[in-house]
Amino acid sequence: MIHFDSDYMAGALPEIMKRLVETNLEETTGYGSDDYTARAKDLIKKACANPDSQVYFLVGGTQTNKTVIDTILERYEGVMAADTGHINVHESGAIENAGHKVIALPSHEGKVHAEDVEQYLSSFYADESYAHMNIPGALYISFPTEYGTLYSKEELTALSNVCHKWNKSLFVDGARLGYGLVAEGNDVTLNDLATLTDVFYIGGTKQGALFGEAVVVNSKSPRFSHFTTIIKMHGALLAKGRLLGLQFETLFTDDLYTRAAKHAVNLAMKLQKGFIAKGYNPIIASPTNQQFFQLPNEVIDRLMKFATFEYWGPRGDNSSLVRFVCSWATTDEAVETLLKNL
Amino acid sequence: MIHFDSDYMAGALPEIMKRLVETNLEETTGYGSDDYTARAKDLIKKACANPDSQVYFLVGGTQTNKTVIDTILERYEGVMAADTGHINVHESGAIENAGHKVIALPSHEGKVHAEDVEQYLSSFYADESYAHMNIPGALYISFPTEYGTLYSKEELTALSNVCHKWNKSLFVDGARLGYGLVAEGNDVTLNDLATLTDVFYIGGTKQGALFGEAVVVNSKSPRFSHFTTIIKMHGALLAKGRLLGLQFETLFTDDLYTRAAKHAVNLAMKLQKGFIAKGYNPIIASPTNQQFFQLPNEVIDRLMKFATFEYWGPRGDNSSLVRFVCSWATTDEAVETLLKNL
Amino acid sequence: MIHFDSDYMAGALPEIMKRLVETNLEETTGYGSDDYTARAKDLIKKACANPDSQVYFLVGGTQTNKTVIDTILERYEGVMAADTGHINVHESGAIENAGHKVIALPSHEGKVHAEDVEQYLSSFYADESYAHMNIPGALYISFPTEYGTLYSKEELTALSNVCHKWNKSLFVDGARLGYGLVAEGNDVTLNDLATLTDVFYIGGTKQGALFGEAVVVNSKSPRFSHFTTIIKMHGALLAKGRLLGLQFETLFTDDLYTRAAKHAVNLAMKLQKGFIAKGYNPIIASPTNQQFFQLPNEVIDRLMKFATFEYWGPRGDNSSLVRFVCSWATTDEAVETLLKNL
Amino acid sequence: MIHFDSDYMAGALPEIMKRLVETNLEETTGYGSDDYTARAKDLIKKACANPDSQVYFLVGGTQTNKTVIDTILERYEGVMAADTGHINVHESGAIENAGHKVIALPSHEGKVHAEDVEQYLSSFYADESYAHMNIPGALYISFPTEYGTLYSKEELTALSNVCHKWNKSLFVDGARLGYGLVAEGNDVTLNDLATLTDVFYIGGTKQGALFGEAVVVNSKSPRFSHFTTIIKMHGALLAKGRLLGLQFETLFTDDLYTRAAKHAVNLAMKLQKGFIAKGYNPIIASPTNQQFFQLPNEVIDRLMKFATFEYWGPRGDNSSLVRFVCSWATTDEAVETLLKNL
Repeated sequence: MIHFDSDYMAGALPEIMKRLVETNLEETTGYGSDDYTARAKDLIKKACANPDSQVYFLVGGTQTNKTVIDTILERYEGVMAADTGHINVHESGAIENAGHKVIALPSHEGKVHAEDVEQYLSSFYADESYAHMNIPGALYISFPTEYGTLYSKEELTALSNVCHKWNKSLFVDGARLGYGLVAEGNDVTLNDLATLTDVFYIGGTKQGALFGEAVVVNSKSPRFSHFTTIIKMHGALLAKGRLLGLQFETLFTDDLYTRAAKHAVNLAMKLQKGFIAKGYNPIIASPTNQQFFQLPNEVIDRLMKFATFEYWGPRGDNSSLVRFVCSWATTDEAVETLLKNL
Repeated sequence: MIHFDSDYMAGALPEIMKRLVETNLEETTGYGSDDYTARAKDLIKKACANPDSQVYFLVGGTQTNKTVIDTILERYEGVMAADTGHINVHESGAIENAGHKVIALPSHEGKVHAEDVEQYLSSFYADESYAHMNIPGALYISFPTEYGTLYSKEELTALSNVCHKWNKSLFVDGARLGYGLVAEGNDVTLNDLATLTDVFYIGGTKQGALFGEAVVVNSKSPRFSHFTTIIKMHGALLAKGRLLGLQFETLFTDDLYTRAAKHAVNLAMKLQKGFIAKGYNPIIASPTNQQFFQLPNEVIDRLMKFATFEYWGPRGDNSSLVRFVCSWATTDEAVETLLKNL
Repeated sequence: MIHFDSDYMAGALPEIMKRLVETNLEETTGYGSDDYTARAKDLIKKACANPDSQVYFLVGGTQTNKTVIDTILERYEGVMAADTGHINVHESGAIENAGHKVIALPSHEGKVHAEDVEQYLSSFYADESYAHMNIPGALYISFPTEYGTLYSKEELTALSNVCHKWNKSLFVDGARLGYGLVAEGNDVTLNDLATLTDVFYIGGTKQGALFGEAVVVNSKSPRFSHFTTIIKMHGALLAKGRLLGLQFETLFTDDLYTRAAKHAVNLAMKLQKGFIAKGYNPIIASPTNQQFFQLPNEVIDRLMKFATFEYWGPRGDNSSLVRFVCSWATTDEAVETLLKNL
Repeated sequence: MIHFDSDYMAGALPEIMKRLVETNLEETTGYGSDDYTARAKDLIKKACANPDSQVYFLVGGTQTNKTVIDTILERYEGVMAADTGHINVHESGAIENAGHKVIALPSHEGKVHAEDVEQYLSSFYADESYAHMNIPGALYISFPTEYGTLYSKEELTALSNVCHKWNKSLFVDGARLGYGLVAEGNDVTLNDLATLTDVFYIGGTKQGALFGEAVVVNSKSPRFSHFTTIIKMHGALLAKGRLLGLQFETLFTDDLYTRAAKHAVNLAMKLQKGFIAKGYNPIIASPTNQQFFQLPNEVIDRLMKFATFEYWGPRGDNSSLVRFVCSWATTDEAVETLLKNL
């Protein structure tokens, strides 16, 4: 069997496993107060090149979205997001469980348009009874989006401008950030994210770590001075915090994070070209590690004999939307095998 | 000035004020343990003709929606509603504040179609990853809807069937219930509601009481045996509970509730006909006490010199959507004056 | 039967009922945007003599405690209170339902000592791991307390000082405020409360209104600029807001609030003296409208044949703790009858 | 430096690291749907010998407490716990953040007495106004407690009986379960826990895993059929779930879990004896891996030059309470060095 279900199927990059084993018997204090964590924070701050940024580590994506959004919002505020956004559809209501409405905006291939945000906010505040509505407090976007698409620097700047014009926070879910940063045509950098957003995170779980997400806080909100307490309250504070620090230290040494992401995206592009060559155009032009195709059910059934991948929604009558994902662990042989049998 | 802003502008029906004054110095125990409340419950149970129903009284609509929905849902469940539903747009995120997602379904003139519910639920459970999504636990509808429209008995039965087929609760917001029950063409009765729904409520605030909503629980969920505690926890338990009992006892004596609603609906129909005669068709065929028109801004400006009414959304460039509401307190003279100057 | 169960057994002061009837058919806009509410706010601001104070009206006590505490606290903060405090024991977990811990401090006849607050906070911040604990964000006290006792101005000042030294908010539950302000020996004024606290409220429900609590906000926290939205989100915004305004306008006209409170406290003192004369000393020296006695069960049983009053805890084997409450509606005859048969 | 701060300072048992490396490049589906997880569940079920038990894996202790307690309680219920219980003092208000009150009961060396539970519940339900209070829904205890003490089988049975008599759930926090199971004098087994409790968990984080807690559900509450959704909603579902399965599979193979715990407890007993020999009696007779002493500050200062350990509360004027913890990773040499320099 070859696997294209997701980018969190294998363990961790060998470099990470090596470091975990090497340092295993060291004893350090908990909750991120160790030196590995301190060095990882420094490396990430350096990569972001924003002296005001602060770095925190959490374990997983939904956890990070819930904890960060609950921190940047006032209790009476909701968060705007694409209707296809992960927080709106695939997090079991975690945001609402924290008391916040997800205000769904139209999705354009997974992306939110700045004009839609402007339109929503100006209509909202033009309504005399807005105090009786859920106040939008922040915008959540994903980079790359859930459909593998990317915002250009221009688009990201426009979103940042409209958010800050209306005094709303901008939060970027970067669970797959690396796959976006290395994509062909991408012009957004870590420094752009650290400058244009209030908070974003650098995904580890889907990018070669066993687990872990690095939250980069650029906002100066005083609430972040209590972020450790908030993380703990959300059950999200890892006891052996150095595991997070050590993994991110490794990822941000010798460009490992970038190299691993490039490997995955290169294979995804090869896969995409192979599908196109067989007459299957991707339903969305994703330059990243996720590829979406509407395939005849008979093709799906044939491929599923030797490959695993996911339906993206319910199976259709004749054809269905499916997703193929490459990761740092995907091999060239696996892609070749898939394409050969397409 | 004449007023068509809403149906909660005047105090209470004179019959209610009379009873409040007559009984004012009586001393009774609190929190609804008094005889007025007991009698009001009996009258409502009798009107509903469902021996299994239980009746509770709360103060206001948003409070009732929040408290009931929080009771019928499991913690991990959300509530389906029309995207135009009051809980989705005009309750400041109260439902989400209680931890539940409002799952917006398409609105058809304010109504939810049973087919859309069936489609949503069958797609939901066909998705292999539904455990990672917010589980729909109930359907919320309004009768009449926020646009004054009504479900037929057939439509209500279809919604009840689809909900119960999928083991979901059906909850009806009846903040304006009386205005629907007396509308021309309506074929839904209190007994239908008590039979087809798990919970519904009979609005008092907008129907001639100073305040108060009568919640009729038809569900046998054991959680309702703790409903008083839940109401208290939501800050919704009125100390002088007899004020609620006495008002509903009065409303359900000598058909007062029905008579007051008919007065309002008759005037709304007169108003509607008057607008149509001047060439302004209602944007939605509402048979109840709310009427919606798209009027030229110049007409709006002229009317607002002597009448008050609400924009329904932001003011447009040339014309705007406005709402006229009649209540038990609206006078024939007021409607005449409005139409004469249209 | 004569009644000493509580101070919310009768309707409202006749002056209030008169005004409700007189103004009943007027039509005003909702949610407190009317002139009655504006005038009531002005009267209360004037009585408080703090130009920075803002006034809001809510319906009931638990609701007010929950809404205010949820507003003054950050999400990760808890509220300190006497272990006997109403929010800790008699609100069905409403504060916790809003996500906040009630941090119980020792109670001294219902009161919190400033030294205990100082001790708690200095120990708390001396603990290296305090970020892993629930951060105390405010102090809740009741004036009068749940046992009818009062803070002196000196005690209140000390509590205010310790709170503000540690940057914590001070919130006073004044559900029975009037009964305290008029008590013999009391030296605390409305102006003191408006100066020394961040928020307090002036109880209406237990002091002669049908319902209603006037929240006086002295804090300059920007969160209160969204207080209407927060109130709505808590299901606590009364549609016919003028009912609250009109009642408080009446209470604060011609000293009605004070006069009604004095009537109740005078009768409570008469009752206390009568009990003492029969050899039953109050278990706590309460100068306000609540009196607590440990009575032999046989006496309780005898009194309960013609009078109602509450056990304060479970019935004991031989004697039990009971509470007698006087209100504006209690008559001299009722007290006489009680004492005669003691 | 030698370290006695806590039992989560080193990485993982070498056997676990070996398995993580061996299996690192395998690709499995996520969220615990893999074979490692299935085998780990089987091993644990077998060890518990209760065919009705179900096993789930979470990442950390606070997270597990919050998620489980939120599942076993109704929304309007609170959880009883020793006032020294971890959920009451060291979890940043996580339980309250989920909406539930922690009802503090007296602690006896960290333990709750069955008589105190019986007394609390019988008084509670004897109070006529209990519907206005927070309903106790479950009892939380720790085994071992936060002070290293253990419940005997008789004590655990008594707690189970009183809980089930009153229809309350019993939940055992077993973050350090292994250290209790192997302690001298302990007569509680995994099967006892699986029979007497509704839910308990087997700690991994503090017992030699990188992280992970195995939740054993013995309750038949239907809510657990949605436990995956609830875990996800709490941000507690690990993407690479097999990491949890694989670690617990390893721990429950060849008695590794027991052997590692014994190593730690043996060293703790040696440490305890050494302290006693020097005249420092433990403040509590803990037979497990945590030892508490009241030491002169000068001794503390001297030891801290070469050893790390924690203050248990603020530093006193002359002496302070400190804690020494042994783990699977503590060496005999470390204990020798500590004792030699005492």
